[in-house]
Amino acid sequence: MEILKFWEDKERIERILDRSNINLIDEEIKQKVEEIVSEVQKSGDGALLKYIELFDGVKLSSFEDLKVKPNELDEAYNLVNKEFLGSLELAADNISNFHKHRSFDSWRCPYEDGVILGQCYRPIECAGIYIPGGRAPYVSTVLMTAIPAKVAGVKKIILCTPPNKDGQVNPYILVAAKLSKVDEVYKVGGAQAIAALAFGTLTIPKVDKIVGPGNIYVTLAKRIVFGYASIDMVAGPTEVVIIADECGNPKFIAADLLSQAEHDPLSLAILITSSSDLANFVIKEVESQSKALSHQEILKHSLKNLTVILTKTLKEAINLSNQIAPEHLELHIKDPWEILEDIAHAGAIFIGEYSPESVGDYFAGPSHVLPTCKSARFFSPLGVEDFLKRSSIISYTKQALTKWGKEIINLANLEGFDAHANAVKVRLNEEATNPA
Amino acid sequence: MEILKFWEDKERIERILDRSNINLIDEEIKQKVEEIVSEVQKSGDGALLKYIELFDGVKLSSFEDLKVKPNELDEAYNLVNKEFLGSLELAADNISNFHKHRSFDSWRCPYEDGVILGQCYRPIECAGIYIPGGRAPYVSTVLMTAIPAKVAGVKKIILCTPPNKDGQVNPYILVAAKLSKVDEVYKVGGAQAIAALAFGTLTIPKVDKIVGPGNIYVTLAKRIVFGYASIDMVAGPTEVVIIADECGNPKFIAADLLSQAEHDPLSLAILITSSSDLANFVIKEVESQSKALSHQEILKHSLKNLTVILTKTLKEAINLSNQIAPEHLELHIKDPWEILEDIAHAGAIFIGEYSPESVGDYFAGPSHVLPTCKSARFFSPLGVEDFLKRSSIISYTKQALTKWGKEIINLANLEGFDAHANAVKVRLNEEATNPA
Repeated sequence: MEILKFWEDKERIERILDRSNINLIDEEIKQKVEEIVSEVQKSGDGALLKYIELFDGVKLSSFEDLKVKPNELDEAYNLVNKEFLGSLELAADNISNFHKHRSFDSWRCPYEDGVILGQCYRPIECAGIYIPGGRAPYVSTVLMTAIPAKVAGVKKIILCTPPNKDGQVNPYILVAAKLSKVDEVYKVGGAQAIAALAFGTLTIPKVDKIVGPGNIYVTLAKRIVFGYASIDMVAGPTEVVIIADECGNPKFIAADLLSQAEHDPLSLAILITSSSDLANFVIKEVESQSKALSHQEILKHSLKNLTVILTKTLKEAINLSNQIAPEHLELHIKDPWEILEDIAHAGAIFIGEYSPESVGDYFAGPSHVLPTCKSARFFSPLGVEDFLKRSSIISYTKQALTKWGKEIINLANLEGFDAHANAVKVRLNEEATNPA
Repeated sequence: MEILKFWEDKERIERILDRSNINLIDEEIKQKVEEIVSEVQKSGDGALLKYIELFDGVKLSSFEDLKVKPNELDEAYNLVNKEFLGSLELAADNISNFHKHRSFDSWRCPYEDGVILGQCYRPIECAGIYIPGGRAPYVSTVLMTAIPAKVAGVKKIILCTPPNKDGQVNPYILVAAKLSKVDEVYKVGGAQAIAALAFGTLTIPKVDKIVGPGNIYVTLAKRIVFGYASIDMVAGPTEVVIIADECGNPKFIAADLLSQAEHDPLSLAILITSSSDLANFVIKEVESQSKALSHQEILKHSLKNLTVILTKTLKEAINLSNQIAPEHLELHIKDPWEILEDIAHAGAIFIGEYSPESVGDYFAGPSHVLPTCKSARFFSPLGVEDFLKRSSIISYTKQALTKWGKEIINLANLEGFDAHANAVKVRLNEEATNPA
């Protein structure tokens, strides 16, 4: 961990910020994923059972075992710690309230000559949520994906997650799924889960949109099936940028950098500050706080990506952050609201020193499914919009078509589409391609 | 062309409606496209010149020739028919007005204990528009893609379109680009254009989002670059479904089916009606009107996909249409507004017999870039939303964090992220991973 100076170390800073190599795809993994997706598309449930045995180390005895049964859900409630249940319910309420804030109402507007134009909003019918396996149950991700879908009005929400070696799903995941009103849970993970959701199998219904994070296999599979179903985004390793001035609290900042760093060896955690005193204090704090944390194996790698960059002005810091387009941006400065307009690209913006990323990851309300690797330039946090679609409405009248028909005929003829022109002509009783 | 009965010919109807084979990708074309994209990514402008010579049959003499110069734009104005210009301006006004209807305002909302949550909307910075080449200039597509981007506030709009054999872009395209406030036009088409927009070259700027229709090469390239930039949708051959009752006008309906059929040999045009009299009249009209149309070579194929399906009830017709999820849906029935709620999936809905698809294709205002091949289940018409992105805003206070910190710590611990828990603890002066 060291301090780079924005005005001296441009080249090294560029190299650290360049996340483009993260998008590079290993050709071997890509072929493997294509093979998995294609086999699930062809052989359905049979392929799922094969891959579950291969990757999750458990032999499910029949296709019916893919689906979590009502009694497994009931049992889950007996297995979870009730204190945790309370926290989960509070978080669920916050997430639900935040996503209800903005309404998406269909509209129709009358124009001259009886013309009506508008847009209909409709929820997609069926959403698929992917929740990764791993040592711990990612309950927050269940809430952060399923609740926006439910608020949008999605009729059916399907969740896929890999089973453990006993063929079970973690009870906390099941309880979180129940709380978020997920309709069906299936014991399948990885690229095979994504393929099952996109194409459907005898057991698993085909969905319209697939959301949720996953490893490189899941991400590649989502790219492959995009178009058969919609997907939320192409996600990479997680990132935080913290902009701080001399008022910043080094303990808070160090803790937040470390909470980013514990996620993934490739996590990026960057402090940008104009105060070299603060920079030095933060580095000391990171060193001391990191010792007592559990994920030492991950931290060993990710602490190398923990960078402090000194700038001369706040404006420089903001420009640098915009160039990074970080997933998470924390503002530990005197007047954070003042500069909000200047933040061009960021997934979630945390304002002030009492808004650590953890608040957003677990509790505040906005989804923690956020764009990474510069894609905050064009992707948005997962939201209600992701589960809605629009239809345009066009209603013309004889009067309007009589008035504007000539223009439409002009444009259709220019593009060489005489049948399009004819569709207007037959209605205006002009000389149409119509011998009658 | 023949009449199928919904209650008898289920299997044949299923076969016609199954567009899934359209998504099947020719392995050879896919490899070719991957090669083109990867070469443009590596070699930039040099690769572009090579492919332009290969595919468009013109040797541009330098990288600078890729960009349309101001004098070429000026000249274009002298070459176009002024009557056409008037029609184009009227259409541009309509498109602009429609897309201005809905505003996307950033919002902030105060909650208990000084908490503030919200969302910032920002336009993406740079949009890339692809306009296919071909016999005729697709001026309407320039308007239908660039104007929603401009309304959203996109700073820079780049247009790529293949040059003709003289190295020129059709003057009508240039005039339409100027009218739609496109900033830069480049003479490059196909997969190579998509790669140039996604990765940038020395001459062509990297964009954040790529929109607009194209052939299979363009579509595959868009899939490949998805994630490096955002894309609008994965588009396939165009479709119309017309639902009509006994009041339907066979001349109008036949003209509209034919205007769909002239687009592409794979175009799908389907009439669903409960009136067998109407069905027979429409078939006769299609036969007579089609004779005088120009695109006989295309019609020879696409008329085979022109299908009439008889249903017993309007409800059956609507269900069938929802199953197709058509790009365009025309309602030639007595009370079209009555059934709008029942239309679950359609790109654009044309209400009443004086609303032919041509009105939407050229003039009414909503974009004609619409989801195809069942993807209206999850994609939307191109709109202002496509050129905006959101950031979440989270501002907590010491008071709020003190109240809710325990819940956040609970959830972080459950997921095994103790650094996340620590970020809350250091702020609450609880026993944190902090020896100080």
